[in-house]
Amino acid sequence: MSDHGLTHLDPLGRARMVDVTPKEPTHRRAIARCRVYMQPETTNKIASNAVLKGDVLAVARVAGIQAAKRTPDLIPLCHQLTIGSVYVNFVIGDADVEVEATVETLDRTGVEMEAMTACAVAALTIYDMVKSTDRSVFVSELALWEKAGGKSGGYRRSDPLEPAEAPAAPVVGIDDTDVDGLWDDSDRAD
Amino acid sequence: MSDHGLTHLDPLGRARMVDVTPKEPTHRRAIARCRVYMQPETTNKIASNAVLKGDVLAVARVAGIQAAKRTPDLIPLCHQLTIGSVYVNFVIGDADVEVEATVETLDRTGVEMEAMTACAVAALTIYDMVKSTDRSVFVSELALWEKAGGKSGGYRRSDPLEPAEAPAAPVVGIDDTDVDGLWDDSDRAD
Amino acid sequence: MSDHGLTHLDPLGRARMVDVTPKEPTHRRAIARCRVYMQPETTNKIASNAVLKGDVLAVARVAGIQAAKRTPDLIPLCHQLTIGSVYVNFVIGDADVEVEATVETLDRTGVEMEAMTACAVAALTIYDMVKSTDRSVFVSELALWEKAGGKSGGYRRSDPLEPAEAPAAPVVGIDDTDVDGLWDDSDRAD
Amino acid sequence: MSDHGLTHLDPLGRARMVDVTPKEPTHRRAIARCRVYMQPETTNKIASNAVLKGDVLAVARVAGIQAAKRTPDLIPLCHQLTIGSVYVNFVIGDADVEVEATVETLDRTGVEMEAMTACAVAALTIYDMVKSTDRSVFVSELALWEKAGGKSGGYRRSDPLEPAEAPAAPVVGIDDTDVDGLWDDSDRAD
Amino acid sequence: MSDHGLTHLDPLGRARMVDVTPKEPTHRRAIARCRVYMQPETTNKIASNAVLKGDVLAVARVAGIQAAKRTPDLIPLCHQLTIGSVYVNFVIGDADVEVEATVETLDRTGVEMEAMTACAVAALTIYDMVKSTDRSVFVSELALWEKAGGKSGGYRRSDPLEPAEAPAAPVVGIDDTDVDGLWDDSDRAD
Amino acid sequence: MSDHGLTHLDPLGRARMVDVTPKEPTHRRAIARCRVYMQPETTNKIASNAVLKGDVLAVARVAGIQAAKRTPDLIPLCHQLTIGSVYVNFVIGDADVEVEATVETLDRTGVEMEAMTACAVAALTIYDMVKSTDRSVFVSELALWEKAGGKSGGYRRSDPLEPAEAPAAPVVGIDDTDVDGLWDDSDRAD
Repeated sequence: MSDHGLTHLDPLGRARMVDVTPKEPTHRRAIARCRVYMQPETTNKIASNAVLKGDVLAVARVAGIQAAKRTPDLIPLCHQLTIGSVYVNFVIGDADVEVEATVETLDRTGVEMEAMTACAVAALTIYDMVKSTDRSVFVSELALWEKAGGKSGGYRRSDPLEPAEAPAAPVVGIDDTDVDGLWDDSDRAD
Repeated sequence: MSDHGLTHLDPLGRARMVDVTPKEPTHRRAIARCRVYMQPETTNKIASNAVLKGDVLAVARVAGIQAAKRTPDLIPLCHQLTIGSVYVNFVIGDADVEVEATVETLDRTGVEMEAMTACAVAALTIYDMVKSTDRSVFVSELALWEKAGGKSGGYRRSDPLEPAEAPAAPVVGIDDTDVDGLWDDSDRAD
Repeated sequence: MSDHGLTHLDPLGRARMVDVTPKEPTHRRAIARCRVYMQPETTNKIASNAVLKGDVLAVARVAGIQAAKRTPDLIPLCHQLTIGSVYVNFVIGDADVEVEATVETLDRTGVEMEAMTACAVAALTIYDMVKSTDRSVFVSELALWEKAGGKSGGYRRSDPLEPAEAPAAPVVGIDDTDVDGLWDDSDRAD
Repeated sequence: MSDHGLTHLDPLGRARMVDVTPKEPTHRRAIARCRVYMQPETTNKIASNAVLKGDVLAVARVAGIQAAKRTPDLIPLCHQLTIGSVYVNFVIGDADVEVEATVETLDRTGVEMEAMTACAVAALTIYDMVKSTDRSVFVSELALWEKAGGKSGGYRRSDPLEPAEAPAAPVVGIDDTDVDGLWDDSDRAD
Repeated sequence: MSDHGLTHLDPLGRARMVDVTPKEPTHRRAIARCRVYMQPETTNKIASNAVLKGDVLAVARVAGIQAAKRTPDLIPLCHQLTIGSVYVNFVIGDADVEVEATVETLDRTGVEMEAMTACAVAALTIYDMVKSTDRSVFVSELALWEKAGGKSGGYRRSDPLEPAEAPAAPVVGIDDTDVDGLWDDSDRAD
Repeated sequence: MSDHGLTHLDPLGRARMVDVTPKEPTHRRAIARCRVYMQPETTNKIASNAVLKGDVLAVARVAGIQAAKRTPDLIPLCHQLTIGSVYVNFVIGDADVEVEATVETLDRTGVEMEAMTACAVAALTIYDMVKSTDRSVFVSELALWEKAGGKSGGYRRSDPLEPAEAPAAPVVGIDDTDVDGLWDDSDRAD
């Protein structure tokens, strides 16, 4: 790895898709989450649509699943892989909808970007459906929450994301208690 | 509009792409922004790559531009349109990279979703390039900041987004001082 | 038009996308329908999922809407256009689900292929969801039922499709009573 | 599997891409067929174009092959896989063109949807090329005819599809005589 | 325009899709050509396949037409537009196949990239079909030959491309005799 | 293989995706190159943009990488595979920019078309960015330069491509000195 520490760039800083062929296929899983903030009356509309058999969450779920499959087409340096499963679910809060995407595969690279992309697109789809009635809507705290598989072992975010107002010193917990390895360079390809 | 107040759903709650053919093509513009939070040493790496002619921001810029063009393929109920221009730019802060996407068109629907999608995908591309060296990275505060054109006039977010820790009462400013119309139903299609 | 009577081929029989630039944009609409035949207990499962707020029909609806937008990417000689609206709906019968897709545009070519493609893909999506529990499932009678706009006036299928067992003499009714023109070559481009 | 019996939905009826990673890759094949009904003079035009080296069937064949590769992009809950081979062929009858698509793979899920989608899109492409000269055209009897590989063994449709006029009691034959297993839940994922 | 003279980059050298909304839609046409060089016995195989109703040229033609429609998805800074017509044809020579793509539109930007992309992808498709029997195959001289429409008037390449062995002083003829304008900055957007 | 010698066509000349499932996955690599010819002052602009941290080469690099991943979507009879790595680089000459794409995989078919497609699209992207300031630009000599892996062993082009002016007798060198096998039919599938 070059000294600039960005694995997707070669030592001269040029973009590349790094070689993953030496890696063995292993079972991998990633969970990402984000929140779509909105007015309480808007979450009420979504909840009430959901209760009344409306399509609002199903549309966002399908959008997220489809986006997971299209990740390497959207994120330029991301490897193609064949996804084993995708689950996209929602928790309707008082003033937000939480989106959670879980992706699994049996492949040479992880599915972190697939889970993040599924989350983002599902959130944007909810945004699209409520934006004309609620100008306050925004998407926030899109982050990886759990990752398993691969040579580097697992990862679990144990602390809440710092408030957006005070990002100067982001604190991120890495819970190593249930993982069997360190995060090392050899898994950094994706 | 049905009583549930979500324009992309019919009165029975079923998803639909609403009819925009009665609308006149007008010049429209939307600006969206988000932040990718990371450790200060990671922003340093990005800045130093940028200084040294590396590709890191260019890759994210291209990803954002391409995503703007693919928005209706990603967001199910979003209309197709032909984009007039896309600009994606970045501001490297102490512990974050701010992404801003500006999209213009001359069409029957707005480009709000195109600006939001460009922003999200550019941010995810930065995330992808730094994730192996900085597990703290996350994307936040993805929001529309300005919108112009269309029957409803313009919109400008004047207040900061509320801290993510306290979303119960999101406050959003609508600055009407330089716009000539109200936000009405007739423009809500997209 | 060449003597072989297939407008998408030149006089030497070579495929082409014919020129539609001389045509004026007009409001156009097309309605297509098909049926997904299955065992009665399978329609019961779909109905019961729908009643219980499940996603089965919403998934198929989204798939149909997305397919309408991708029609020129799937059907090689089909022109691109910007769709004004898409509606995909379902009627659950005793032993079939009827799919209906309505597409509108304001453009130089019709949306017949968009409606047909939306119908087919929505039907295939239902097929995909029931195929493991009902091996009898098949898709049938995919046809255009109504078309309006364009120089040639409208079209409406007034008779039922002939039984598939006796296709030798298909009878198709053209209901001219509410249309103001004949079907002529000039509209055959798409 | 939940009690509603639709494997692509979870027990709460929510759409998901089920996990196929526990399955072993095996050689799998699927054959689907459908018919494009039209006037006899239209089949004559197609036959005569084919005789005269025209492109009509080649265009439909390419469209079908490309659609097979895009199946997971069209059918939301369908898994990605890498197709081993695709064959799309046609039989020109008196008043119809029969389309047959054969797809093979060596993967964890079957290629039934790929064969069905290839068939449907090849048929729609023929429809697109004849629709301006023959308003009677429609697509029908799109069904799986044979399936091999996977834990559940094979499947072969032995009876004709029932006439579309009498769909109330669809009869589908499952010919188990040359297959070595039962159709069981464990293969229902795709 | 900035002083570096590359219109797709802003004065700081950053990529952008320039704004075309101020431009008026006009009828535009572009013709591009290239050659696929190969052994004479390979051109014989292609010619003989063509004579015998084989698909070889039809497959390449469809690939070129589809690629024209996908140009803005492939070329990052290229604008979307709706293509009016595409023709892709071939001339089989002694030791090459010449590919010619003609694209027309009625839009705000030209179709030069669409014609070039159609040509390149049709040529690559021929390459793909002959590569296993002829390792000498290569694609060359991919160039714009004619362009009409837009504020800048037309363009026609009147001289042959210089031999590839002596590219130091490429000579390109611009035949202004049948065009009514100069090539100016205002049309350089696309 | 049929007697016409084109593996992608069956004995009747019909297009097909040949079966690759009997082949074993092996490590494979392909290197393709082409040249974008232009005026010396245009290469100066590109060099100067590159020196000044502009995006011109990064945009082309990303376009090439993305095109490699989309190859089976562009080239109809090309198999899908999962790419292990892609590198796209450039050498700025006096009157041309040389493009080189290297693609690796561990799969059942080679990545020759992926390397060729990456090269072509990266070249077209450069063409797109300079075309408004230099009408002389064209793309030439797109060829495979090296191929390794697969049953047939390797291949390396040892002679320069013949000048385009004298294509009648293309001479292609096959350097067998460092490869351990012959080029045989069994690897011709892709």
